[in-house]
Amino acid sequence: MAPKAPMSGAWLPVEGGITAPEGYTASGVAAGVKKKGLDVAVLFSTQPAVAAGVFTQNLVQAAPVVLSRENLRIARGRARAILINSGCANACTGAQGKKDAFLSTQKLASLLKTAHEQILVASTGVIGAFLPMPKMLEGIAAAVSALNDKGGHDAALAIMTTDTKEKIVAFEGKISGKTVRIGGMAKGSGMIHPDMATMIGVITTDVKISHGELRRVLQRINERTFNCLTVDGDTSTNDTVFVMANGAAGVAANDTKSLKAFEAGLALVCRELTKMIARDGEGATKFVEITVKGAADFKSARKVAKTIANSPLVKTALYGQELNWGRILCAIGYSKVKLNPDKVTLCINGIPIFSKGKPVSEKRAEAEKIMKEHDIVIEAILAEGKESATVWTCDLSHEYVNINASYIS
Amino acid sequence: MAPKAPMSGAWLPVEGGITAPEGYTASGVAAGVKKKGLDVAVLFSTQPAVAAGVFTQNLVQAAPVVLSRENLRIARGRARAILINSGCANACTGAQGKKDAFLSTQKLASLLKTAHEQILVASTGVIGAFLPMPKMLEGIAAAVSALNDKGGHDAALAIMTTDTKEKIVAFEGKISGKTVRIGGMAKGSGMIHPDMATMIGVITTDVKISHGELRRVLQRINERTFNCLTVDGDTSTNDTVFVMANGAAGVAANDTKSLKAFEAGLALVCRELTKMIARDGEGATKFVEITVKGAADFKSARKVAKTIANSPLVKTALYGQELNWGRILCAIGYSKVKLNPDKVTLCINGIPIFSKGKPVSEKRAEAEKIMKEHDIVIEAILAEGKESATVWTCDLSHEYVNINASYIS
Repeated sequence: MAPKAPMSGAWLPVEGGITAPEGYTASGVAAGVKKKGLDVAVLFSTQPAVAAGVFTQNLVQAAPVVLSRENLRIARGRARAILINSGCANACTGAQGKKDAFLSTQKLASLLKTAHEQILVASTGVIGAFLPMPKMLEGIAAAVSALNDKGGHDAALAIMTTDTKEKIVAFEGKISGKTVRIGGMAKGSGMIHPDMATMIGVITTDVKISHGELRRVLQRINERTFNCLTVDGDTSTNDTVFVMANGAAGVAANDTKSLKAFEAGLALVCRELTKMIARDGEGATKFVEITVKGAADFKSARKVAKTIANSPLVKTALYGQELNWGRILCAIGYSKVKLNPDKVTLCINGIPIFSKGKPVSEKRAEAEKIMKEHDIVIEAILAEGKESATVWTCDLSHEYVNINASYIS
Repeated sequence: MAPKAPMSGAWLPVEGGITAPEGYTASGVAAGVKKKGLDVAVLFSTQPAVAAGVFTQNLVQAAPVVLSRENLRIARGRARAILINSGCANACTGAQGKKDAFLSTQKLASLLKTAHEQILVASTGVIGAFLPMPKMLEGIAAAVSALNDKGGHDAALAIMTTDTKEKIVAFEGKISGKTVRIGGMAKGSGMIHPDMATMIGVITTDVKISHGELRRVLQRINERTFNCLTVDGDTSTNDTVFVMANGAAGVAANDTKSLKAFEAGLALVCRELTKMIARDGEGATKFVEITVKGAADFKSARKVAKTIANSPLVKTALYGQELNWGRILCAIGYSKVKLNPDKVTLCINGIPIFSKGKPVSEKRAEAEKIMKEHDIVIEAILAEGKESATVWTCDLSHEYVNINASYIS
């Protein structure tokens, strides 16, 4: 879905993903961690940069999550490079997993001649398997040799698992009259129900911004983008979003106006990546946007929207293109949010389906047709307050079962 | 699964379901509410009886749930008959739905010559459709004509929707030296994630017990049986469990010892019905029992167990017979229960898989084989306390998607 120009204001789409902003190189190589395809990605900032991250709230945290969090703390938000592998999550791997993650960052740091605390790291793939270290170390060396300022695309390919498409985006805008860019990439298709972060997202910018501001802006945006995404309700052990800002554009976001402009651009990048993940959900045949309006507060609105989004019965009805709206109302009812079901209005792609406690029968035939569309927008108006939230998801298909019934083999 | 004699003490299985106890007649007839098959069930106590019910906690409550709750209150826990139809949930049907439910109970009351407040009612089927009243009223008359003391089986057939098997059970035991019986039936296959009750369960007994005691015993047992059941995480709008006690056996449960004996029997009936529903979950190819031990309290243990049970990734891995135990640990981690993942021990059918923060590699081959068994027992020991909980569920198969992608058509 191309971003709508009027919504994005001065931000216009450009090519290049994470290497679109000035001062970044990247690469993706095949190291043999996966059976085939690119599986090791490196992103390098050619000049000092600050970084911020949001991570999974799952109590079971993968070794790379633990290490990245520690490195951000020790380096006080400075970072020079990000290392990501697919094919192995390095989660539930105990002391050896921690050591493997550390040795990987140490290898990359020595090749890039930087402090190892300034390397951030993420892994994605099977849980409970150890990283194949000889292959990893060779892959890191190959990735460093391959670093180039058009490498954003290869890096995005190298972080994919069950994804069917690479997910990259970049926008160009102006801050204080100067051109700046924000680029991003993400992966994620299953085990997607981010809680404070998504599977893996990497965002770069050439804006200059303090580490503290970057962290605050990321946290705010994350709540309304990646944390409004669900494929299957499974919160991963490896969810990570990194943002790097290296100031190469020679312009700072450091006052109300410039920070606001930067936040708008970053929000755009995060929202587009979020939608790309929903659209490429495991086995997805539908892209589903669920907006809950008239809630008492944002969290209640999001809770209701996520409950609808995670209902296997709603998801299979969408897959079957059936107007089984009772399942949506049923999910609203068990969301544990205080509301009066008789006041709820339910619309699908703009057509009212349920209102004032009963079905809107005269619209039924029209609504049944709409279920065949690929993009489905569900709108629930609660009449309890003025807040709203939008959540993105997909349907539950035979292909989801295929993919996940034989993930290891 | 046949009840284990040592666990049930003096309670032995008998035939007859809800008509096994003295003083009950029942029937199931085809009224045309469903396209085919039996769809209206009536249960009648030939003498005055007390009753208790537990109902869905979904805020969207079907008309029969609202009416039954009201009738139990008005009649102060006395009830003579229960009316159940399948094929239409009479939920989200506004004022007309309430009127239809009332007219149905009124019709049955006049035929049985009892007060309409002493009729309890439940419906199951499509949400958002109105009851076909002429068919319902004819069906009620036919069901009353068909009432007989061997009718428990037909009644159980008439409440089925996507169930592939009728679910009936009955036990005989002794209280104060006299023979008593407890019988039950249930339906439920999808939209199963009971919260204070299950889809529909009806239990009869010929023990004499006060309404207050019956209610307390039911609530206690419900928490550890029906509320420990999930097929798909969708809490229905129609969940209802009724228990009727008519005292026809001429023995009262009215002191500590007799109440304890009755509670043991009722627990046995509820547990068997719960397991039958899990075993017959929509599209199920596996029966899955999940026990969480070493929790700080029962609710935490159940929350962890239910989080595992509801994970689409765990369920599809079970369907694929894959030992993808990382998904189980991942679900434990996002259950929102405070715990230390490094202290968790995970066993499948008695084989340790994960312990002390890392995989138990030497058991892997053996564990992979066990995944092909039909009955899977997952055990997670948290080492946080002394409480435990068991939850019953099934896998997520292609057939689940088939059933729910074309439920209406």
